[in-house]
Amino acid sequence: MSEKQMNAAGSPDNETLSLLMKHASVRQYLDTPVSDEQLAAIIGAAQMASTSSNVQAYSVIAVTDAALKAQLSAYSGNQAYIEQCPVFLVWCADLYRLKETVRPHLGDAETYEDTTENLIVATVDVALAAQNAAVAAESLGLGVVYIGGIRNNSAAVSELLGLPELVYPVFGMCLGTPAGESGLRPRLPLSAVLHYNGYDKEKTAAQVEIYDQVSSDYMHKRTGGQSSTPWSAMMAKRLAEPARLHMKDYLQEKGFMKR
Amino acid sequence: MSEKQMNAAGSPDNETLSLLMKHASVRQYLDTPVSDEQLAAIIGAAQMASTSSNVQAYSVIAVTDAALKAQLSAYSGNQAYIEQCPVFLVWCADLYRLKETVRPHLGDAETYEDTTENLIVATVDVALAAQNAAVAAESLGLGVVYIGGIRNNSAAVSELLGLPELVYPVFGMCLGTPAGESGLRPRLPLSAVLHYNGYDKEKTAAQVEIYDQVSSDYMHKRTGGQSSTPWSAMMAKRLAEPARLHMKDYLQEKGFMKR
Repeated sequence: MSEKQMNAAGSPDNETLSLLMKHASVRQYLDTPVSDEQLAAIIGAAQMASTSSNVQAYSVIAVTDAALKAQLSAYSGNQAYIEQCPVFLVWCADLYRLKETVRPHLGDAETYEDTTENLIVATVDVALAAQNAAVAAESLGLGVVYIGGIRNNSAAVSELLGLPELVYPVFGMCLGTPAGESGLRPRLPLSAVLHYNGYDKEKTAAQVEIYDQVSSDYMHKRTGGQSSTPWSAMMAKRLAEPARLHMKDYLQEKGFMKR
Repeated sequence: MSEKQMNAAGSPDNETLSLLMKHASVRQYLDTPVSDEQLAAIIGAAQMASTSSNVQAYSVIAVTDAALKAQLSAYSGNQAYIEQCPVFLVWCADLYRLKETVRPHLGDAETYEDTTENLIVATVDVALAAQNAAVAAESLGLGVVYIGGIRNNSAAVSELLGLPELVYPVFGMCLGTPAGESGLRPRLPLSAVLHYNGYDKEKTAAQVEIYDQVSSDYMHKRTGGQSSTPWSAMMAKRLAEPARLHMKDYLQEKGFMKR
């Protein structure tokens, strides 16, 4: 490793690593538009991500129309930044293009786009592409926030954007110029997510205890003392509530995971 | 945008974008080990990726044991680079940690970790983290290749690595120092994957025709004239064959997408 790739503490370091380490979701945007050149560079970088056997099983809808953004915001739980950002990207798993592509070759032969395996393939493909896009955007001084809320109303979003069978919106992504700085949210200790040569169930409780303290302190600071709910309590609240129970039927209606 | 962020043609450019644009999968590795500091930096960068409502629903198993790597290679279709690379990462969607975390808060109350929605959440979470890891690794001069073949034998891999309920191996990733250069594989035209304000079904056929020519030329060059199969024909071969039909039952047995 060259000296350029180490920091003062002797840890690996370079421009890209520094960029990755300072990621924070952006929920306030300036009016500044995203240029066509910037968007092309961002989606071009997304396309260079790995893709399962080169299937490239995703599409992205760049929503710039104000009325459409307003409707998508309403469908996603009224998150104001969806309307405020200049470009709202809707990242879709897309097996429709693949099915259309192979039809002339296969005629009426049976095909297997509708398996659970291919739902995983397409969902992973779109996530890898989107994360490259997020990194590319941040390298250009832009900011992003992922919007899982797009799945609150999967069928309505699909209808609004004219998504054909075998295409589903996995998440949205606001894209634009950040208005101000966002704080870094601390993550679980490294050793909570990294295991060696096998899964170590025993360490979970101790790692979560450490993180509960860290996350509680973080919330206390971020809210000016209003809240200090630890991570485990926030997760309990989340897991106790049913969320998006329509997904199984919706995906099957769209032609996914039929077997 | 600063001048530093433009190339000679006036397109956005910087060190990170250049890195993303030159990604190619690495299938031959030198013996050089990956240091603990490098691995910590790579997984640390992975952790900074966005995560749905901060659930951080993934774990990664770093496999360095030679016998384990050999067994995982056998389970994944005998891909030699799994044995050859110094570290084989198995990226897992992980809702087990979350369930264990919330149990003390909720006692016997019903929880919703087993929904199709949460399968999507965890699968996206692990993919975003892994892609950050891939970018971080490449920034340090290392190379990677994603291994979907780990799903050929999901249950056997789970058993070998001691994966508890609600944890499944989504993909593997070889990590190490590249032995030589890999060629850049051309992707679909930008406009095939990028739509504006709605999905445009009409353009698919024309874009695929363009890409068939590009991919055929690429294969011709890469194989020294031995093969020039266009993309659509390769995809037809892939979609005509049933693959990993066990995934639906396997995931449900592991506690995922029960509703």
